[in-house]
Amino acid sequence: MADTERPHRIRRILIVGKRDSQPARPAIRRLARMAEARGIDVVFDEHTAAALQGRRRPGRAARAARADLCVVVGGDGTLLSAARSIAGRPIPILGVNLGGLGFMAETGPEEAPSVFAEVLKGRFDVGRRMTLDATLTRAGRTVARQSVLNDVVISKSALARMIELKVIIDRNMVTHYRADGLIVSTPTGSTAYSLSAGGPIIHPEMDALLIAPICPHTLTMRPLVVPAAAQVEIVLQTGDSEVYLTLDGQVGYPLRSRDRVRVKRGTRPVLMVRTRRRNYFEVLRRKLRWGER
Amino acid sequence: MADTERPHRIRRILIVGKRDSQPARPAIRRLARMAEARGIDVVFDEHTAAALQGRRRPGRAARAARADLCVVVGGDGTLLSAARSIAGRPIPILGVNLGGLGFMAETGPEEAPSVFAEVLKGRFDVGRRMTLDATLTRAGRTVARQSVLNDVVISKSALARMIELKVIIDRNMVTHYRADGLIVSTPTGSTAYSLSAGGPIIHPEMDALLIAPICPHTLTMRPLVVPAAAQVEIVLQTGDSEVYLTLDGQVGYPLRSRDRVRVKRGTRPVLMVRTRRRNYFEVLRRKLRWGER
Amino acid sequence: MADTERPHRIRRILIVGKRDSQPARPAIRRLARMAEARGIDVVFDEHTAAALQGRRRPGRAARAARADLCVVVGGDGTLLSAARSIAGRPIPILGVNLGGLGFMAETGPEEAPSVFAEVLKGRFDVGRRMTLDATLTRAGRTVARQSVLNDVVISKSALARMIELKVIIDRNMVTHYRADGLIVSTPTGSTAYSLSAGGPIIHPEMDALLIAPICPHTLTMRPLVVPAAAQVEIVLQTGDSEVYLTLDGQVGYPLRSRDRVRVKRGTRPVLMVRTRRRNYFEVLRRKLRWGER
Amino acid sequence: MADTERPHRIRRILIVGKRDSQPARPAIRRLARMAEARGIDVVFDEHTAAALQGRRRPGRAARAARADLCVVVGGDGTLLSAARSIAGRPIPILGVNLGGLGFMAETGPEEAPSVFAEVLKGRFDVGRRMTLDATLTRAGRTVARQSVLNDVVISKSALARMIELKVIIDRNMVTHYRADGLIVSTPTGSTAYSLSAGGPIIHPEMDALLIAPICPHTLTMRPLVVPAAAQVEIVLQTGDSEVYLTLDGQVGYPLRSRDRVRVKRGTRPVLMVRTRRRNYFEVLRRKLRWGER
Repeated sequence: MADTERPHRIRRILIVGKRDSQPARPAIRRLARMAEARGIDVVFDEHTAAALQGRRRPGRAARAARADLCVVVGGDGTLLSAARSIAGRPIPILGVNLGGLGFMAETGPEEAPSVFAEVLKGRFDVGRRMTLDATLTRAGRTVARQSVLNDVVISKSALARMIELKVIIDRNMVTHYRADGLIVSTPTGSTAYSLSAGGPIIHPEMDALLIAPICPHTLTMRPLVVPAAAQVEIVLQTGDSEVYLTLDGQVGYPLRSRDRVRVKRGTRPVLMVRTRRRNYFEVLRRKLRWGER
Repeated sequence: MADTERPHRIRRILIVGKRDSQPARPAIRRLARMAEARGIDVVFDEHTAAALQGRRRPGRAARAARADLCVVVGGDGTLLSAARSIAGRPIPILGVNLGGLGFMAETGPEEAPSVFAEVLKGRFDVGRRMTLDATLTRAGRTVARQSVLNDVVISKSALARMIELKVIIDRNMVTHYRADGLIVSTPTGSTAYSLSAGGPIIHPEMDALLIAPICPHTLTMRPLVVPAAAQVEIVLQTGDSEVYLTLDGQVGYPLRSRDRVRVKRGTRPVLMVRTRRRNYFEVLRRKLRWGER
Repeated sequence: MADTERPHRIRRILIVGKRDSQPARPAIRRLARMAEARGIDVVFDEHTAAALQGRRRPGRAARAARADLCVVVGGDGTLLSAARSIAGRPIPILGVNLGGLGFMAETGPEEAPSVFAEVLKGRFDVGRRMTLDATLTRAGRTVARQSVLNDVVISKSALARMIELKVIIDRNMVTHYRADGLIVSTPTGSTAYSLSAGGPIIHPEMDALLIAPICPHTLTMRPLVVPAAAQVEIVLQTGDSEVYLTLDGQVGYPLRSRDRVRVKRGTRPVLMVRTRRRNYFEVLRRKLRWGER
Repeated sequence: MADTERPHRIRRILIVGKRDSQPARPAIRRLARMAEARGIDVVFDEHTAAALQGRRRPGRAARAARADLCVVVGGDGTLLSAARSIAGRPIPILGVNLGGLGFMAETGPEEAPSVFAEVLKGRFDVGRRMTLDATLTRAGRTVARQSVLNDVVISKSALARMIELKVIIDRNMVTHYRADGLIVSTPTGSTAYSLSAGGPIIHPEMDALLIAPICPHTLTMRPLVVPAAAQVEIVLQTGDSEVYLTLDGQVGYPLRSRDRVRVKRGTRPVLMVRTRRRNYFEVLRRKLRWGER
C-alpha cells in the first residue's frame, strides 16, 4: 500500500498557505526559515507571498513548477486547491494542518517542525492518490473540465424538489437516481462529503470510484464502488429545478436539463508525503473516535 | 389509534383539484356529479373552478368554510396545500390520488367511486393528524408564521458549505448540528423527506415531533423523537451561506445568520377520512414493497 | 415532560448494588451511612447484603416493598434488574453509575454524595418511564411472561440463517421481516441495542413503542414507531433455526416455529429520580459526543 | 472490467445440483441431454448423481477435475459450495438459478436452455471473482483454513452480549470493534450478508476487501474498503461469550478468547461465465428494484 522511493533530494520547496489566515503566517515563516537554513530554495504561491506582506516574493511559475516538494499550511480545503494548481506535475505534497489533525494533512501544528526536519532530509515515502477528471457537456459541447482530488457533486438547491439523474457506466445503464443529489468520489474523498451521505470509508491509496446518492427517495439505493477504470456518465433528467455541479466543494456550475457530467480517473495521481509518524488507521481512529466507547 | 364518530352527515363538500392537471378534471366532474345526485352541495376552490372552464363557479369563502368534507383530487402535494388552506376548521379531508397509491390519499383512481359513495353516506372514521406551527423570527421580530402537516426544513443551497444550527428544546440546549440541514417533521411527514434522510417511520396518528439531520458531519447524530408538547427552537449559526427555510416542501424563505425558527405542535389537527378499505400498514407494505424478497 | 410531586418524604431506602462488584461496596457503604445519619432506614437486596459480608442484613421482602426510594449502584444492567424486581411498586429509582455516565443513571461516582444528599431531603422530580409486558405463547399456552424497561429482542443464533418473523399490530398485519432478528423497544431502550441496529433516539419520557429490525434483508425496512397503546404480536415463521427471545438483554428463552411473542405497554411505569443537575439532552451530548467536530 | 478469451472449447462439463431439490432434477437432466447431444462428456458431483437415482454415475474426481465448465443448478448457496469444491482449478462456473434471478447466477430457469446453448458453443466471457483465504489459529496453531467467495463472519450467539474484536491490517492496528460481529467480504459478497449490515455494493470484478461491523456500539463506525493485498487479522478479545466464525454462511467454528482469524486474498480467483444477456447493473436494478419509485 505504499510507494517507496527514498531518499528524496529536496532542492526547492513551494509553500502554499491558507488564504486570509492570520495564524498560518508565523507557521509559514518558520518553515521557510528552516528550509533556507538548509540551503533549500523557497518559493510561494501568489496569495501566500502577498500575505507575507512583501517580504516574500511569489515564485515565478517556472520556478514553482520545478519544486521538489509542496508544503501546504492550512486545512483540507487549502490542500485541495494546491493539489489542483500543481495537477499533473509529480511534486509530493506535505500537508501541515493548523487546526489539529485533518484527514489529508500529514502533521498538525505541534509536530510540524520535527516532521518537516525529517522531510527536508528526504526521509519520507510517497503515497499516490487517484484523482478524477470531470467534464461537463451541454448539447454536445464541452462547457467545463477539471480535475478533483475529493469529489464531483451534483445537487439540487434548497428550494428545488428532488432531482432525477440517469447514471451510465461504460455504456451500461446503472439506474435513475431520484434524490437530493449524487456524489462521485475518489477514495480520498470517501471521508469528506460522501461520509455524511452514508458512504463507506475507502482506503485512500486504493483505485476505485465511489458513487453515493444524497438522500435517495428509493430506499434500496446503496453506495456503489466501481473499478477506477470505469467511465461514469451522469445525465440530468430534471428540467425545472435549480441544480449545481460542484467540484471538490470549491468550484460550482449551474446545470441545465440534459447536461452531461462525465467522470473518469485522472491521468496523474496526486503524490502525498507520508512519514513514519502515523498511518491511515490512526487518523481514522482519532478523527472518528473509533477507539472509544 | 382511531377516532370514531359515525355516522357523519354530509351536506356540502369542497373539492380541491391538482393545479394544471388535465387528468384531474374528469375525475373531479365525476365525483361532483355523484355528490349532486345525492342532493349534496358542491363547491370548488378558486383554481379548480377556473380549471373546470367556467362551468363551475368557485365556492365563496363563506360557503367553503362550512363544508362537511373536503375532497382532494391529486397527489400528496395538493393535499398538503388543501390542508393548509382549511387549517383550523374541522373539515375531514378525503384524498383521491390520481397516480396510484399515496401515503396520505385514502384511495386511488380505480376505487375512488366506490369509496366516495360510502363516504357520502357518512360511513367513515376520522383520523387526527397533528400539525406543526412554524415561526421565523429575525432580530426579535416575527417574519413569517405558518402551519404545516409534513415538515419544517432548514437547508443549505447547493453551493454552500455545511451549515451549523443550534437546537434548543424547552429551553434546554440539545446540540449544534453541522449538516446540510435539519428536518422537523410530524409523524405524517416521517414518510416524506425525513425518510430519505434516514429517519424512522412514525405512525401518523401519534403525537410526536421528529428531528432528523440531513447529511450530518458528526457521525453519531441520529434522528430524535420528542414529545408533541416540546417546543423546538433552531438558531442559524452560520453567517456566510445561502440557507433556506422550507415549509411542507412548498413555501420557502431565505434565512440570515441568527434567525430563529420556532416549531411547536399546531393548535388544531388535520382530520383525515379513513375507510375500511385499507390500513396504514398496508400502505407501508405497498409503497415500500415491504412484503417482497 | 416531567412529573413533579415535591417534596418527597424519604423514610426508608432500598440499596441494590452491582453483583460481584468490588468497587461498588465502598460506594454502597458510604451512601448507607449518609442515609442512616439522617435517621433513614436502610435495607439491601439479598445479593448486596451478602456482598457486604454479613455486616449488613438483607431487607426482608416486606420492608423492601415499603421503601420510599431505591438506590441502584452499578451500571444500566443492574438498574434494569432492580427495575424488574420492584416492578409494580411506585418506588422511585436513583441510578448511581460506577463507571462514568450511563444513559439511565442520574449521577456518576464523583457527584453521587452531593446528589444523594439532595435526594434524601426529598428534593427531586420523578420521571415516568413506560415498560413493556412480553408474553411468550406456544400452541396457545403461556410459556413465559415478563416486564421489561428496555427491550424485547428476538434473534437468531450465530450459525442460523436469516429468520422470518410475521408482525401484527392490533390485528393488522404489518409485514414479514426477513432479518437477523427484531427489537421491540421502549423509548428508554431506544439508546440501548436498538441504537446499534440503526434505530432513532426517542425521548425516554414519551409513550411509544419502537420496532427495529436487525440486519433486514429487505433494504426498504425502516425502524417503526407506533403508539404505546398498540399491541404487537410477533410470530416466528422459520422452523429449522436456533432462535431466542431475550428480555432486557438478561433473560433468554429458546423459540420454536409458530411461537408467538406478544408485547404491550406495561401496566405500571418505572419511576426515575431526576435532579436539577442534568437533563436528557446533556446525557445524549456527552454519551454520543454530539457537540464535537 | 472483463476478461475475454474466446472462443472456449467445451469438451466436458461438471454439473452440480442443489441438494435435496426435487425441482432441480428435470432441469439438470435437460441440460445434460443438451450437452450430450453435442458430444460433450457430462459428469456429476456425488450428491447430484445420487439424486438422479442411479441413472447417472458420479464423475470420478479425476474426470471432474478436468471439466471445461461447471454448471451449477440451484441458488447462490449451491454456487458457493460448488466454487469451494473446485477451488484452485480454472474451471468457469455457469450459475443456473431455479428460483428467479440470483446475484451470482447468470441465468434463470426460462432462459437457461438458450443461454446454455450459446455457452456450449464457447460463446461467453469469463469474469474473475476474487476469493478470500481464512485461517483460524488458536494459541499459535492452525485450527482451520478455508477459501470463501462471499464472506468471513465472526458473530456472537443470540444470548451473548456484545463482543469485542481487535482488527489489525498489515500490522497496523485499525480499531477495537464492539459489536454483534464483523464481516470481511469480497466484492462478490458485498451483496450478501454485508448489505443487510449496511455495507456498500462493490462491483464483483473489483479487487478489494470490505470490512463491515454488525450492529456496532460505537456509532461512528462505518464500513471500510481496503486493498485486496491487505492482510486482515481479527483477534477475539471477549472471553465469556459464545462466538462463532462462519465461512460463506455455510461452515461454522466456535471461537475462544484470543483466537485469531487471518483473512487475505485467495491465491486463485473463481471464474464466472458471463454472457451478453445481462450485465451486473441490470441485476442490481432487478434485485434491488432500483428503477422503481
